[in-house]
Formats: sequence, C-alpha cells, structure tokens
Amino acid sequence: MAGKKRELSGVLTPMVTPFKNDRVLFHGLIANVEKMNETGLAGYFVLGTNGEYKSLSVDERFQVLRTVVKYRAKGKGVMAGMGFESTKETIDMVLRAADEGADMASLLMPHFFAKKMTPEALAGYITDVADASPIPVVLYNNPSVASAVTIRADLIDRVKDHPNVIGIKDSSSETYRQNLEAAKGKMCVLAGTANYFLDLLKAGGSGGVLSLANVFPDACAKLYTLFREGKMQEAEALNTSLIALNKEVSGSFGVAGVKAAMDLCGFCGGDPRKPLLPLAAEQLATLKASLGKSAFAQ
Amino acid sequence: MAGKKRELSGVLTPMVTPFKNDRVLFHGLIANVEKMNETGLAGYFVLGTNGEYKSLSVDERFQVLRTVVKYRAKGKGVMAGMGFESTKETIDMVLRAADEGADMASLLMPHFFAKKMTPEALAGYITDVADASPIPVVLYNNPSVASAVTIRADLIDRVKDHPNVIGIKDSSSETYRQNLEAAKGKMCVLAGTANYFLDLLKAGGSGGVLSLANVFPDACAKLYTLFREGKMQEAEALNTSLIALNKEVSGSFGVAGVKAAMDLCGFCGGDPRKPLLPLAAEQLATLKASLGKSAFAQ
Amino acid sequence: MAGKKRELSGVLTPMVTPFKNDRVLFHGLIANVEKMNETGLAGYFVLGTNGEYKSLSVDERFQVLRTVVKYRAKGKGVMAGMGFESTKETIDMVLRAADEGADMASLLMPHFFAKKMTPEALAGYITDVADASPIPVVLYNNPSVASAVTIRADLIDRVKDHPNVIGIKDSSSETYRQNLEAAKGKMCVLAGTANYFLDLLKAGGSGGVLSLANVFPDACAKLYTLFREGKMQEAEALNTSLIALNKEVSGSFGVAGVKAAMDLCGFCGGDPRKPLLPLAAEQLATLKASLGKSAFAQ
Amino acid sequence: MAGKKRELSGVLTPMVTPFKNDRVLFHGLIANVEKMNETGLAGYFVLGTNGEYKSLSVDERFQVLRTVVKYRAKGKGVMAGMGFESTKETIDMVLRAADEGADMASLLMPHFFAKKMTPEALAGYITDVADASPIPVVLYNNPSVASAVTIRADLIDRVKDHPNVIGIKDSSSETYRQNLEAAKGKMCVLAGTANYFLDLLKAGGSGGVLSLANVFPDACAKLYTLFREGKMQEAEALNTSLIALNKEVSGSFGVAGVKAAMDLCGFCGGDPRKPLLPLAAEQLATLKASLGKSAFAQ
Repeated sequence: MAGKKRELSGVLTPMVTPFKNDRVLFHGLIANVEKMNETGLAGYFVLGTNGEYKSLSVDERFQVLRTVVKYRAKGKGVMAGMGFESTKETIDMVLRAADEGADMASLLMPHFFAKKMTPEALAGYITDVADASPIPVVLYNNPSVASAVTIRADLIDRVKDHPNVIGIKDSSSETYRQNLEAAKGKMCVLAGTANYFLDLLKAGGSGGVLSLANVFPDACAKLYTLFREGKMQEAEALNTSLIALNKEVSGSFGVAGVKAAMDLCGFCGGDPRKPLLPLAAEQLATLKASLGKSAFAQ
Repeated sequence: MAGKKRELSGVLTPMVTPFKNDRVLFHGLIANVEKMNETGLAGYFVLGTNGEYKSLSVDERFQVLRTVVKYRAKGKGVMAGMGFESTKETIDMVLRAADEGADMASLLMPHFFAKKMTPEALAGYITDVADASPIPVVLYNNPSVASAVTIRADLIDRVKDHPNVIGIKDSSSETYRQNLEAAKGKMCVLAGTANYFLDLLKAGGSGGVLSLANVFPDACAKLYTLFREGKMQEAEALNTSLIALNKEVSGSFGVAGVKAAMDLCGFCGGDPRKPLLPLAAEQLATLKASLGKSAFAQ
Repeated sequence: MAGKKRELSGVLTPMVTPFKNDRVLFHGLIANVEKMNETGLAGYFVLGTNGEYKSLSVDERFQVLRTVVKYRAKGKGVMAGMGFESTKETIDMVLRAADEGADMASLLMPHFFAKKMTPEALAGYITDVADASPIPVVLYNNPSVASAVTIRADLIDRVKDHPNVIGIKDSSSETYRQNLEAAKGKMCVLAGTANYFLDLLKAGGSGGVLSLANVFPDACAKLYTLFREGKMQEAEALNTSLIALNKEVSGSFGVAGVKAAMDLCGFCGGDPRKPLLPLAAEQLATLKASLGKSAFAQ
Repeated sequence: MAGKKRELSGVLTPMVTPFKNDRVLFHGLIANVEKMNETGLAGYFVLGTNGEYKSLSVDERFQVLRTVVKYRAKGKGVMAGMGFESTKETIDMVLRAADEGADMASLLMPHFFAKKMTPEALAGYITDVADASPIPVVLYNNPSVASAVTIRADLIDRVKDHPNVIGIKDSSSETYRQNLEAAKGKMCVLAGTANYFLDLLKAGGSGGVLSLANVFPDACAKLYTLFREGKMQEAEALNTSLIALNKEVSGSFGVAGVKAAMDLCGFCGGDPRKPLLPLAAEQLATLKASLGKSAFAQ
C-alpha cells in the first residue's frame, strides 16, 4: 500500500441488528460480539445493509456502534456505516462516530437524487468527507440498495490519491474487477460478498465483508487464512462450500435469511425491523434443510 | 369521498429548502411562504423531494416544518413528508409532525430493501402508520426516487378503506390512471407533476402537488380554478404553457432547476445541498432563455 | 353544591389507550372520541386505570391528553388522571395538564409507601396540590390498584372545604356510601363503576366514570338521563342489564376485556400494553358470547 | 455461577435520596458516596425503595444515577433501579441507564395491574427487558411495595437460564429460601434486608442490599468479610447487633428512619419527599436513644 494509509485486510462481519417487536436486542448484539471475539475475524462492520442501518434512528445507530466498540476484543477493528444523503450530515455523523470509537467509516454513496450523482458530484462528496474526517474512510459500492448509483473506475481515479480514502468495499459482481485494477497500489479492496471473496483475493484484494460471517465466522476467517498461507487446494474446497451456503442464506432470503440462520446456529439474529418481514414458515423450513445438509452442521 | 375522510384538493407547492453554504436559509423560506400566502394555492407540502428532505438532519426537518406552519396563512394546509425506512421511525416522526402542527403526513414508501417491499409488506407499513397517526396520511408514489418501489392498484385496494388513509400523490405517469381507478370514492388522488395535472383532474383527481408552483404559484392555482369553473378552453391553453415550462425547468434540471428558476422569478431558491450541484453556467443560461420566452416573463 | 365549586355530573368515559405492538394507536383514539362526541356523555376521563396511564411515558400521557382535548366536542369535559407519587411531581404535572387544556385533574393517592400514607399525610398531599393547581381536583379512590390506600370519611373531612377540591370518584364498593355521607354538600361524588352507579345516584351522587361507557356510551348516558327524568322503572331495568354486562366485560377480564369488547362493538380497543396481556382465545370466545346475548347486540 | 454470568456479591448500599424542601440535595448525595467509597462496600444500588425513586421525575432519576456513577470509587459497582410499569418504558429507561454508566439494572415487578401479573406475564416482561438490555438485569422481589406481586420459584424457573438475568434481590422473608433453592447455580441471590443477610449467606446467597449500610457501611461490610473468612462466631455476634439496630431504624420508621439515622451518624439523610413525612419529634427521640445504646455509638 502506498504511503501511510492504514492497511485493511481479513474478514469483517457486517453485523446484523437483532430486533424483537421492533426493539433492538442489545444483549443479543453483545452475545454475538463476544462469540465472534473468539474467532479469527479481523473486525466488525456495523451499520451496514445487514445492520438495517436505515431502519434505525440516528440515536439508535450510535447506541449500536457504542455497544460493539465497547465489547469488541482488543485488536478487532470497527468500521461504521456512515453514508447519509448530504455532505453536511455525513460529516457531522462521521465526527460523532469517531468520538464513539469507530476506527474507520464506510460511505455508501448518496442516491436519493441518483440521476444527478455524476462522478464529479460523488468525487466532491468523498473528498469533502475524507478531508473533514478524523478517521479513514472506505467507499461502499452497493448499487443494489443505492438506486443504481455505482462506483466505477473513473470515480476511483478521482479519489484514490486522497490520503484518508483507504479502501473500497465492493458488493457488485459487475464492477469489482475493474475497481480492483483502478485501485491498485492506492486503496485496499474488500469483497462485499462470499460469492467472489476468494476470487478477489487471488486478484489482489485484501479482504472481505461477508454477511455469511454472521453465521459461520470461523469458516470465513479460515478461508482467508488458508489463502494467506498458500493452501490453495483447501481454500478452493472451502470456498465452494461457502458460496453454496451463501446462496441459500443471503442469496435466497436476504437479511431476514441471515438472521434466521444465525438463530439456527447459536447466534442472536432476531427479527428484521418492520416493514421488512421475517421468513415465512416454509422459507424457514427450506433454510433449515439447507443448513442441515451443510458441512458446518453441528 | 366516502365517509368522513378529509377532502384534499387544489394545488399544493412542494416547498424547496433554500441553502447557502449548505445551511438552510430560513429567512428565504419564510419569504417564499409569505409570497405564496397571497396566491390561490391550497397549501404547502414540506419535506418532499423538492425539499431535499433526505439531505436534512431530523432536527432540521422539524425546523423547516415548524417555520412553514408558523408563517402559512390561515386556510392553507400543511402536508409533511414523513417517509422513513422503518415503521417505528415513521410513526415516531409522524407523532412529532402532528405535535408541530402538520395537518397531514405524506408517506414515501420504504425502499432501501426494495426487492422485499411486497404489497403485503407495504400494506402492513401503511396500516401501522395510519393506525398510530393522529393526522391523516397521504401515500406518495414516486418510483424515480424510491428505487422503483411503485404503488399500484393492488396495494391501494389493501388500504383504501382505512379511515385515516385519505389520498395518494402520484408522481408516476405510468400508474396514475390505474391508481385513480382503484382509489375511486375512497381516496383523493393528486398529480405529482404538472405534466398530467389537468389530465388527472379530468379523470376524477382532486388536485396536484406541482414543483412548478414554486416558480409560478398563481398560474398553477389558476389552472385548477379554471378547471373547477368549467372554463376548459382557457384551462387547456394554460395547461399547454405550463407543461412546456415544466419540461424546461424541472424536467431538464430537477430540483436545481426549480431553485434557479425561483431565484430568477423573485423567490428564494438558493443552492441545492451538496453533493447535489447547482446548475452550471451554461445550464443557467439555457434556463434563463426558456423562462424569458414564457408567457409569464415579467 | 356549596360555594362556587364547579358542578360535576353525568357520565364520563374512562378512555382506554389503544395499543398495537406497544405503540399508541392515536387514530383509533381519535375515532373513539369522535363517536362518543355524538352521545349524551358528559365528558372524558383520560389517563386513568382503564387508560393504563402508568404504562405510558410522561410524554405519551400528554400526547394522549392533547389528542382528546383537541377532538372532544364542545361542552364535553376532560378530566386528566394526574396521580404521581410525590407532591412535587403531581403539581408539576397538573400545571402541564392545565396548559394542555384539561378541565380538571383526578388524583389517585400516592401508594408506594402505602403504610405511611396516613390521613394526615394524604390530606397534606391533597391540599398542597389543590392549592397549586389552576384547575379543580377530583379525588380518586381505588384501593384495588393503589396498594390498599383507601380514601375514607376521615380524610374527606379534612379536605372537603377546600374550594379547589370539587369531588371524589369512588371505585370502592366498601366505602362509597360513607364517603357520600361525608362529602354531602361539599363535594360531588361519582361512581367509579356501573355496579353501583344507579344506587349512588339515588343516594345523592351526581354521576359516574364507567368503564362500560367505552363499549356502550349511549346506554350508560341514557341511564343517567332516565334517573334525572325520574323514570325509575326504566332506569332500574336498564341498570340491571348494564350491571350484568359490566360483570362479564370488566369484572371478568379487566382492561383487556373492555378493550376486546370495544373492538367487537365498533370502537378501537386495541391491545393492552405489555406486560398486560390481551385476552386468550377462549376468553375472547366467552366475551363474544356474552355480548351476543346482550340487549345491545346489533 | 453457570456460564459467563457476571458475579454479584458483597454488600451494596441502597442509596437514599436526600431532600430539603422537596429538592434533591445533590451535594449531600455526593458526600455520602465519597464517605462510602472509603469502606468495604461492593457498590451502590441507586433508585430503589430507600431512594424513593417513585417520588422522582424521570429526569431527576438520571441526575441521581449520573451523580453516583461519577463519584463512586473505582471498583464499586452501580446497580440502577429501573422497574417501570410497561415493558416498553422499562426498556427505554434501561438503555438510558446503560448510557449513563450503570453496571446493571434492578427490576421491581410491574404491579399496577397486580392481579394480572401472572408468572407468564412476568416471565415475558423479564425476558423482553433482558433481551433488549445492554447491561445485566437483577430481579427485585419486594411484595411490600409492589401490591403483593411476589417473585416465587416458578417464575425463577422460567427466567434463570437467560444469560442476561444474573441475580435476584429478595426483600421478602417468606420467599428467600425457596428462591435461593430455585436459583441455585443459575442466578446470584442477594438479601434485601439485614434481618436475614447472614442467614442467606450461610444458605448459599452471595450478598446483600442493606438499608442499614446507609448508616453503618463499615459494620455491614465487615459482616460479609467475617463470613467469607469463616470467622463465624464474630459474624454471628455482629449479625445479632445489626439485626437489632435494623429493627429500630428501618423496621420501626422505614425510609424516614434511615434518613434520620444517617443525619445522626454523620451522613446526609435529609428529609423524605412529601407526602412521605419525616420523623415526628418523639420518634426522633426514640431513634436517638436506640442509636446511642448501640455498639456503634461514637
């Protein structure tokens, strides 16, 4: 990595926010962190898509962040999802996240006025936030939840030399290869899904933020270790299993599926917050069957 | 309108929020309200798309709402845009809007998890909010800013009998005719744009929320009056002019165009909030030329 | 009534607070008020036992009070339940209730330190609050929810000459006759239940706060009118029906029963707030059967 | 203790809230904490019965909590009394207590609707709160102030496996032995009074929350130490003295007696808050005489 930019590597869990009757189950969140502290995970990504961050009030977001910061084990990093629609609010909130102990901030691109979010507008946004932020910022490319606002190579070129823009988490299978190319030597690239995590590592990426790590943190962390130790045959085998599982959990059922799988595997997933609905009975049965067949069934 | 539901008719202005250096120009907002108070407008829609509500902090939103409530003339209604992503936060905020004096609340559908927003999930959301709200709610169909979440007739059928769901503001040219049909006798329908405002009135709609009313409130209000008085020839002629103007202002340039046109026509438009950019010099020149040619040029 | 004390007579409904998922259904509350506005009720008692006031936050209590004040028809009074444990908090809250438009305040006796609530301590409490309050106060005797703290004749003797202590609502079948005697000519006495409402009227009482009026406001108001018009035979017959119904609704099932009966009879009862539980399925079936057999079944 | 539940042991003082003219004497509270910091106490229980918590507004409660958290010595725990009547408000307040730095929350059972507080309803309440709370919860059994709602073994059986329900403070001489049996190996049990503190320790309990520790913190802490060191003869002798004293202070005069004794012994007791009355002159004389005869008279 060029210059003094902070290295960003390994597997982070995009923490879910467990709910019951639309209230946050803080004890469940703490229990999840304490269990994951025992694994080889690099850290926690709080307040992302899997965390249903847009369904939380601003105060609730910081209660969640504060809780994860307080209970995470020494050495585990905390990245906070801080993408708001305006430059001003994003900066105000990134300052607050830094005060609460977040190690870095992740920025989903503004997308309410999607058609107007030109590379010029987005580069201005990223630069303004990165200039103002006391903690490093990581771009978050997720066109599936951001009204098709996509981070592409031309945008990366505009911001990659900023010393406080340290990486990109790419959740788009269409763009990650070009973005990796564009970022080379300037910004870390993390896979936003297990589907191409190993593929991205092999191409020069440095880690992943994997929703599957909410359910199988050990297996996800192990895949990274196997890759780093050069045990490629084992890595490929494990990768195949994880991709299959990921399709049956997150792929089929989204956040509600991840949460249900957590409940089945000893973590606290809880319900999604309304209007997002939990799995229907038949969906839950399908999920149970998938998990039962997996190599990780206990 | 069936039963005792509140009638909702005439032209409302979707108020812009003027900014300078990313700060709200409250005095400019007040000046706009005071000018519009003198016109035949039915009222104000605050905190909508033209109000860049997603670019405001929650506290700023209520400062804006409070300001318009305070300065609006007697008889002018205030509808507050209160679509948040979770049922819980929407309800909390609608209660606060009612406390601040809003007459009704407008609900943009949750769309962060767009693919999961089935008619069932959305009907649950609308019903939960309408049950809990002390003020009537108006649905807001705007798939262009809501990640393609669209309100269609099947959803209207599920909620139209709720006594606190009084109308729909439809900003989609694809759906408004079917939605009008589905809502008949149960909910008011407002056009979300000048493009089909008269068309919708003729088909049984009751009003419009027209961004063009920020620039030409008198002309927009007059179109409604002409229609109500049965002066159809005059109405059609005025309508043709307004549709042409609307294309050159909002159609070409969006919120930034509306704001620039306001500044040119004696209102306070101000800048958009970053990262949304103001018009470039050549865009501004084009806009000036369009407005100069219009029948409303002063 | 001696002096200039405000007269307090007729039937008041102790309004329930409808909940769904532990949130207040404000629209349902408004609908209830609007329906009851059409009846011969004298007014509304908000924030009492049936209103589950101790299950509401202080801010929620005032939202409920404000809502009923706003929607009550002209001529209908609003009495607000304002019994807090300390003299100081009760006074602070009574002032706030007066600001919100309550016509009078009802005081449940402090009971956390029940054994120390001697007539001397309670008389001091009542006098301090009545002195400070801009609105008249009404004592509320309900030993069943107040840890056996009971208002008896010796306490009434100590406070009945206070010009701002205008009445007592008595929900204890053991005490109401002696309390009526003690209050004679000094304070109004209201029955706290349908069980002895007519009995108390005949003995000189002036009205009632009847949970059954949530379900059958017309019948409850009519009983009062029949009595005032001297139509005693009709009054006795109606009274017999109402007492029987009251036992099957409130008597058997408490607040949850009142709410369920409201839902069955076209009002919005909603759920109780947890940990208070709604009726179980078999309880609901029993209630339905009772209501179906009643003379008021539609 | 099973699993990783936090251990809860030693003597905690249920802090009084000193008042003068119904205002909290914060400086007196601070002085009390600073003196108790020098003793062998394990920590402070704020906002309990002795703290007259129900006589404080919600904001005052958090001012008191914040003050004790700020001034307590390192190593002293703070348990906050957070029993409200509804599940929702209890959770909201426990979150706020955690934000203010409380180490754990104590839950008095809801009791306004005492007859409906079945083991099922209470187990639901405890579980909902424990799930949502970021800090461990401790049950508080005190039927004398909670309208006879009693925590018994059947309720403990329903909640003792919850990882966030770590203990019970039992203030009922009728139930503590059975509750200790039911909780064995799953939850800590603390005595709620000096009367059976040593008795409970001998039977396997782990500590006590003793109102007498407001007056004689050293002696109370010493009793615990003697027991832990196996010096049973000394422990029994001291215990006999403390029980005798407890009867003359708290037993005869309740909270007002504890406060008066504090004033006599160099702490700041202050007045109770009205309508709770301070000791009458003759009561105070009796108390003085009792304390003068005690082995701890200075």
